[in-house]
Amino acid sequence: MPAHRIDALQYCNWSRQIFEEWRIGGLDAVHVTVGYHEDFAELVHELKHWDAQFREHGDLIMPGSSGRDVRKARSMGKTAVFFGVQNPAPIGSDLGMLAICHRLGLRFMQLTYNLQSLCGAGWQETEDSGLTRFGRQVVAEMNRLGMVIDLSHAGERTTLDAIEASARPVTVTHANPRWWRETYRNLPDTVIRALAASGGMLGFSLYPHHLSGGSECTLQSFCEMTARVAEVMGPEKLGIGSDLC
Amino acid sequence: MPAHRIDALQYCNWSRQIFEEWRIGGLDAVHVTVGYHEDFAELVHELKHWDAQFREHGDLIMPGSSGRDVRKARSMGKTAVFFGVQNPAPIGSDLGMLAICHRLGLRFMQLTYNLQSLCGAGWQETEDSGLTRFGRQVVAEMNRLGMVIDLSHAGERTTLDAIEASARPVTVTHANPRWWRETYRNLPDTVIRALAASGGMLGFSLYPHHLSGGSECTLQSFCEMTARVAEVMGPEKLGIGSDLC
Repeated sequence: MPAHRIDALQYCNWSRQIFEEWRIGGLDAVHVTVGYHEDFAELVHELKHWDAQFREHGDLIMPGSSGRDVRKARSMGKTAVFFGVQNPAPIGSDLGMLAICHRLGLRFMQLTYNLQSLCGAGWQETEDSGLTRFGRQVVAEMNRLGMVIDLSHAGERTTLDAIEASARPVTVTHANPRWWRETYRNLPDTVIRALAASGGMLGFSLYPHHLSGGSECTLQSFCEMTARVAEVMGPEKLGIGSDLC
Repeated sequence: MPAHRIDALQYCNWSRQIFEEWRIGGLDAVHVTVGYHEDFAELVHELKHWDAQFREHGDLIMPGSSGRDVRKARSMGKTAVFFGVQNPAPIGSDLGMLAICHRLGLRFMQLTYNLQSLCGAGWQETEDSGLTRFGRQVVAEMNRLGMVIDLSHAGERTTLDAIEASARPVTVTHANPRWWRETYRNLPDTVIRALAASGGMLGFSLYPHHLSGGSECTLQSFCEMTARVAEVMGPEKLGIGSDLC
């Protein structure tokens, strides 16, 4: 049986056309962003919107909450949608909200989106003081619940701290190596090596600002980059987080 | 294998002692009230409290969301907790909130608690205009989601309307026949017959105000009453909703 096809992160102006493209592309599952800076009430609003999409386009998509659902989606010719937020904003400073968000179907959460959060620092901060005391509790609770820790927009020290603090492998769902395109948003070798050593996963990003040559990036250059990262991380730990589509 | 033991509704000052009593009584599952008049934010607060209980008393209780969990709880020597609210307050006037509440684990909802709600009338209203237009949509959506419609505190006309509108059997989780104890809170024969005809279920109530003789009610009188109701509904459709304990 061929490997399952999973997009490690997408955010779109969702429509039936997008879901039809998923089916044409044979995607068994997609990690869908349901929040950037939004709070809990706004998250609930977004999930209501998704419940309506599942009803309206139930021939193409279904909600996903476990590995079983990826296999189920494939067998039914559908794409399973897994929810994630790019920022811990919905939980505020309340650890108990993680279990609530998990009940609502959230399976991915970034500890910080570009800037300082209550959990740690984003890549745009000039000072990264690493994982906070609250951030350590969040990591432990996400481990307990089985939520995936995503560090795509975190600073280097926060990322390394989280990799070390987490009892389970973590992910960077959408980023590229910094040596290929120089930006703090992409990953230094320290992070790629630590991610590899911990058994974590990396999804390459197709967002132009993360690509060598931006929108002019060639497929050749992209593939050579992935081959080189595969030498460090192993091909089975790599994927694609297509990001904005 | 003996039948599963399920309490059709309980509300308590929850403690480890209560959960130990559940185990002594061999309860495989309990429908637990997590809200009376509280709104959505307060419901989330209550569910956070329950997540803490599941962590602290995980040797005695576990969250339940399907029939499978009742069997799982029995095999593990635990009691499965099913969430319900006695009023549709958490959904406000927003039908989409039902799926959100279902995601959070809610499996029972009453359409009205004593007074008029957006769905229908409670038994304390002097006029019962029946199931509202919104109430009909709520019934259909609860049918779709697989949530149990509970009519324990509804007025007679609203109850009969809901039984007729629902594509699935409904419940009265805690009430007794009115001929046994005269109070509008107990069920007239019209409701008992309609409930029976629709395949619905009735949980007898142990709340003193619903008992013949109040707190002085004898076991003999209670059992004679249940035997007489069983002649109408069949014993397999009857249970106990212990209500306040």
